[in-house]
Amino acid sequence: MTATRVSVLGMGLMGSAVAKAFLDAGHDVAVWNRTPAKCVPLADAGARTVWSPGEAVAWGEVTVAVLSDYRAVEEVVTSIAPGVAAPGSVFVNLTSGDADAAAAMRKTFASTDMTYLDGAVLSFPKDVGGTADILLSGPEAVWDTYKDVLTAMGSGTVHTGPAIHEANVIDTAATGAFLCVSLGAFYEASAYAAHHGIPADRLAGPAIRWLELMRAEILQGVEQITSGDYATDQATVDTYEAAMAMVTDAIRTTGRPANILSGFLSNLRAAQAAGLGDKSLAVTHEILNGKTP
Amino acid sequence: MTATRVSVLGMGLMGSAVAKAFLDAGHDVAVWNRTPAKCVPLADAGARTVWSPGEAVAWGEVTVAVLSDYRAVEEVVTSIAPGVAAPGSVFVNLTSGDADAAAAMRKTFASTDMTYLDGAVLSFPKDVGGTADILLSGPEAVWDTYKDVLTAMGSGTVHTGPAIHEANVIDTAATGAFLCVSLGAFYEASAYAAHHGIPADRLAGPAIRWLELMRAEILQGVEQITSGDYATDQATVDTYEAAMAMVTDAIRTTGRPANILSGFLSNLRAAQAAGLGDKSLAVTHEILNGKTP
Repeated sequence: MTATRVSVLGMGLMGSAVAKAFLDAGHDVAVWNRTPAKCVPLADAGARTVWSPGEAVAWGEVTVAVLSDYRAVEEVVTSIAPGVAAPGSVFVNLTSGDADAAAAMRKTFASTDMTYLDGAVLSFPKDVGGTADILLSGPEAVWDTYKDVLTAMGSGTVHTGPAIHEANVIDTAATGAFLCVSLGAFYEASAYAAHHGIPADRLAGPAIRWLELMRAEILQGVEQITSGDYATDQATVDTYEAAMAMVTDAIRTTGRPANILSGFLSNLRAAQAAGLGDKSLAVTHEILNGKTP
Repeated sequence: MTATRVSVLGMGLMGSAVAKAFLDAGHDVAVWNRTPAKCVPLADAGARTVWSPGEAVAWGEVTVAVLSDYRAVEEVVTSIAPGVAAPGSVFVNLTSGDADAAAAMRKTFASTDMTYLDGAVLSFPKDVGGTADILLSGPEAVWDTYKDVLTAMGSGTVHTGPAIHEANVIDTAATGAFLCVSLGAFYEASAYAAHHGIPADRLAGPAIRWLELMRAEILQGVEQITSGDYATDQATVDTYEAAMAMVTDAIRTTGRPANILSGFLSNLRAAQAAGLGDKSLAVTHEILNGKTP
């Protein structure tokens, strides 16, 4: 393998893990952080410390940013003088953002010498350099050129396609709208159980056993969305609505607002109002898209 | 093992699986269903068909009900003439309901000759007779007498304690407020992704990989609730609120209501309003219980 010069911007937990992964893979690594002290562990591990984003992109053939938000990335990029970046170099932004943020950032890069890949990390820092899943969106040719370097961040590093927003959209949907909400729902559940004298640790076992069912149900729901056939001989929207109305009432009776649950109930009732009460839960995908299959 | 006479009321998918599990374990089984034709597969497998709930409880030492809802159970029980039930017999109700329903049903049974156990099945019909998790609440002595018979329904059959409502509360919380809501959240996620041209099957992989993180986060959240220490060096309530505000905006910008997500955002903002923005997500458990640790 040829060692490539890789600069990493941002030495938080994730940025440090990314820099370490490149070092471990035998690349030459430079690190930058707004507070330089945070670069010390990586410098000890063999990275060079650089003192500005401009120095980072001038030195690196690949620059990877893992900053707090897109505004921080924007500040960093606009601080770099024109002509400083290494010709033909690529800027990979792993900072979390939404679809519009990725599109806007691509525009920012249009006036620089760098090509732009937008990305999202769907894993823990501890998995970076191992099995981490990392999504990268942008020009196919750039991915082809650098994929051997970039997969050092994780064996699950994949190119989602040329559309710059895709990594962010998948991250927003899978992480934000699914993972985080599900965790929040667990605490609505545990608070209700606590009212009835059942401590949270007695809910953990059942909740965790349900994860296996969640896996099977998601795969089946995706099949139904793909085929457009929402027939079911198992639980229908009507079944879910009746059950969730009971659960929402049970929680509200205890004085708790059941905020997440009642949002779900709204989606179910929208499906019923569209005459889809006898279909599977996955039909709420269509309802939320304004369609009635 | 001594064969015990077990009657099963309700030959839906779950009731049929329960009856089959008792047969396979060598018990004598009678089955009843409002529509008798549904008893045919079990009769073919060796069960006797009985023609009324009264006949079922007169014959069986153990009667297990798996009906559509508590109203159906109430109808069945009040249709049984006094003195008909076998003396010392037990009625096990696996129908889904809430805490109040279990308490009310226990009162109904106070005027019969049967003792009452309330239960909930946290598994698929296919797992009944195998590894199914089944919760049973009610008198300890009744559980002790019948546990060898009842565990034929699943190796995970456990007694939650004497408080009659516990099986229902754990089921309402783990199944309703956690599992079902999480599945609903997946479709808010998939509908948003569809707007950006990303089909549901491309979300399945990331969502399923997040289940492992969900497992770890739930166990850690439960530890925090148990200890009352919500300090975190990872994501705080403020971090979640900022991320969920971005995700909610991203979804609403596409014309979708983000109902489940905005319920989650309300819980996060309640925690912030209580001055707990620097704590872990698990602190929402306390907020929903009206406490500020």
